[in-house]
Amino acid sequence: MEKANNVFNLDRNMKVHNFNAGPSILPNEVLYKASKALIDFEGSGMSILEIGHRTELFMNVMDEARSLVRELMQLEDDFEVLYLHGGASTQFMQSAMNLLENGETAGYVDTGVWSYKAIKEAKNFGYVDVVASSRESNYNHIPKQFTIPPQSKYLHITTNNTIYGTQWQTIPVTDIPIVADMSSDILSRQMDFNRFSLIYAGVQKNMGAAGACMVAVRKSALGKVTRKIPTILDYKVHIENGSMFNTPPVFAVYISMLTLRWLKEQGGVAAIEKINEKKASLLYSEIDNNPLFRGTVVKEDRSRMNVCFIMDKPELEEEFLKFCKKEDIVGIKGHRSVGGFRASLYNALPYESVEVMVEAMKYFSLKKA
Amino acid sequence: MEKANNVFNLDRNMKVHNFNAGPSILPNEVLYKASKALIDFEGSGMSILEIGHRTELFMNVMDEARSLVRELMQLEDDFEVLYLHGGASTQFMQSAMNLLENGETAGYVDTGVWSYKAIKEAKNFGYVDVVASSRESNYNHIPKQFTIPPQSKYLHITTNNTIYGTQWQTIPVTDIPIVADMSSDILSRQMDFNRFSLIYAGVQKNMGAAGACMVAVRKSALGKVTRKIPTILDYKVHIENGSMFNTPPVFAVYISMLTLRWLKEQGGVAAIEKINEKKASLLYSEIDNNPLFRGTVVKEDRSRMNVCFIMDKPELEEEFLKFCKKEDIVGIKGHRSVGGFRASLYNALPYESVEVMVEAMKYFSLKKA
Ligand SMILES: Cc1ncc(COP(=O)(O)O)c(C=O)c1O
Ligand SMILES: Cc1ncc(COP(=O)(O)O)c(C=O)c1O
Ligand SMILES: [Mg+2]
Ligand SMILES: [Mg+2]
Ligand SMILES: [Mg+2]
Ligand SMILES: [Mg+2]
Repeated sequence: MEKANNVFNLDRNMKVHNFNAGPSILPNEVLYKASKALIDFEGSGMSILEIGHRTELFMNVMDEARSLVRELMQLEDDFEVLYLHGGASTQFMQSAMNLLENGETAGYVDTGVWSYKAIKEAKNFGYVDVVASSRESNYNHIPKQFTIPPQSKYLHITTNNTIYGTQWQTIPVTDIPIVADMSSDILSRQMDFNRFSLIYAGVQKNMGAAGACMVAVRKSALGKVTRKIPTILDYKVHIENGSMFNTPPVFAVYISMLTLRWLKEQGGVAAIEKINEKKASLLYSEIDNNPLFRGTVVKEDRSRMNVCFIMDKPELEEEFLKFCKKEDIVGIKGHRSVGGFRASLYNALPYESVEVMVEAMKYFSLKKA
Repeated sequence: MEKANNVFNLDRNMKVHNFNAGPSILPNEVLYKASKALIDFEGSGMSILEIGHRTELFMNVMDEARSLVRELMQLEDDFEVLYLHGGASTQFMQSAMNLLENGETAGYVDTGVWSYKAIKEAKNFGYVDVVASSRESNYNHIPKQFTIPPQSKYLHITTNNTIYGTQWQTIPVTDIPIVADMSSDILSRQMDFNRFSLIYAGVQKNMGAAGACMVAVRKSALGKVTRKIPTILDYKVHIENGSMFNTPPVFAVYISMLTLRWLKEQGGVAAIEKINEKKASLLYSEIDNNPLFRGTVVKEDRSRMNVCFIMDKPELEEEFLKFCKKEDIVGIKGHRSVGGFRASLYNALPYESVEVMVEAMKYFSLKKA
């Protein structure tokens, strides 16, 4: 076969400030590397999409991704790290299916749409005790006072609530095993991840692109339910098969591996946390100081990943969105259940993008003064 | 933000002849297009990996992929086309969960590892009647004589058996609804797809890259079981949500859409079938005529997608593999349960690669004569 002479130049138009809530911004390095791997992966003459998943070429990718998660999260040996199909929504049911015996009870804290969906799916498998909810105030805070029934098999929380912009600042202190959906703040801040029994996160925010879900689970928490679990939904099966029970989402795992490598090069979670704090406080200060804008979340529960805010004059919101669009600020329209604006400040979003956003708010406000 | 000045040249080393069984070869056009989209998708200034899945940009991709499937397969209106997470292995249990009521029976034909796994998972939900099996002869043929109990809810077949290289040449004639795993021969040959009630296929062979499973299901077949189905496993939910119940595997759907576009440009299924026949008969002729090689499958059931063959002198097999490797022939080692060689001739594999393979067989055979 002749050598392809298709040589082309790629050029990324970096004018866009991408505040998307997920799928969301990725590091440029990751995209460039992946773009090349799509044509020729590691000099194999094949695309990353064309190699067998049981070849050394890909096994290395899977192994590196799994061990980077372990390293960046500083997980104890009892944990196994898996890349599974199905997104975080599959974990709503899969976690309960694997951990909650028929007739047993699990405690859930209801902090928004995603935890609400987790509650709904868990009910297929056991009893759910909703130990606290902020639903009545449109999820504008994290419930502080609640008791977990001592017989609970586990307590489920959503560490960051993507839609409402709230975030657990501390993890509840309890002897009951904790299960957490960390889809929208995983690896964005330091945390004792070993305090959990099961952690899951769709990788399409801080860990890569859509198409896989990372699950970190304690081996010691498994094998305790009697129901028959379909093979592909059994965490034990995936552990035994090194996260390769069936064809994995090859490219999604590859992108995640590259994203984790990038994070490690930035200095890991401790380093990125500092930048994330700087980004969030720059934006929240402007929201607080600018008379046109107002945050929607009680201050102590504000998320450093998803910043939600509105205008006191809603008739200006459309105009501000248009103005932002002209300034190449993308993805800041708020979710319909909150309205206004939501700026997502995931790990890969540069500080400069937040500066541009704040400039836009200042300028718009002066114009309207 | 400054404009990135990372301009680089990509060059695909097309020396490799890729006979991988899946993930497998993709059309060059698809890879080049995707490589660009990874940097800047449709002039958005964002990567295909960075756009929201509910934006028009991606909804167009999803819609085009789904309608290309419908068009290429000429599906009746009763069908819905879905792109789901989880690979084909998830469908082993999900199809039975959605179609087979507790206490009901489904007929399954056991033609290899994949159908065997489908049987195992279906048993979680109802009775399975294995109406025929070629297990005793290491799956070297498709069973011809079998009766389907009239009360069967459906008959499940695997139209092409990737590991053993057998293929159903005709679809069983029956009034019972047919469910088919078409993972390894979908869109490779003309077929009356409307004779089925449910068709599923991991997209990583003829329909794209790993990370999604295509499901074409008759609406009229759904809603007939009483069990509670977890939301994410309910086909009806995915239909209602336009195959976007949760974050879809964005990139896998995009690659599939591009692959289907390419197939349509080639002239669709009728045109590719002719080429696939030419490729397969070239290789099978060589296997039959060359004294060193021998096919493993009864002739009438030979697959045009996965060609399995062995040597009468097994001590030469290792040597032939090495020789092929030197000739940049990749992916022809047979599956351990058959041994010898397997050359997969999926849609994207050029005729020229089969010519090179046949040349290699001739040359090696002369050398050893
Ligand atoms: C906190 C949280 N959990 C779960 C999900 C659902 O993830 P997926 O779409 O991968 O199922 C999301 C999606 O944004 C999320 O933000
Ligand atoms: C016919 C057939 N069915 C099912 C599968 C399993 O597919 P997946 O790995 O996507 O679960 C395969 C994989 O090669 C296959 O060839
Ligand atoms: Mg939420
Ligand atoms: Mg203010
Ligand atoms: Mg098989
Ligand atoms: Mg012969």
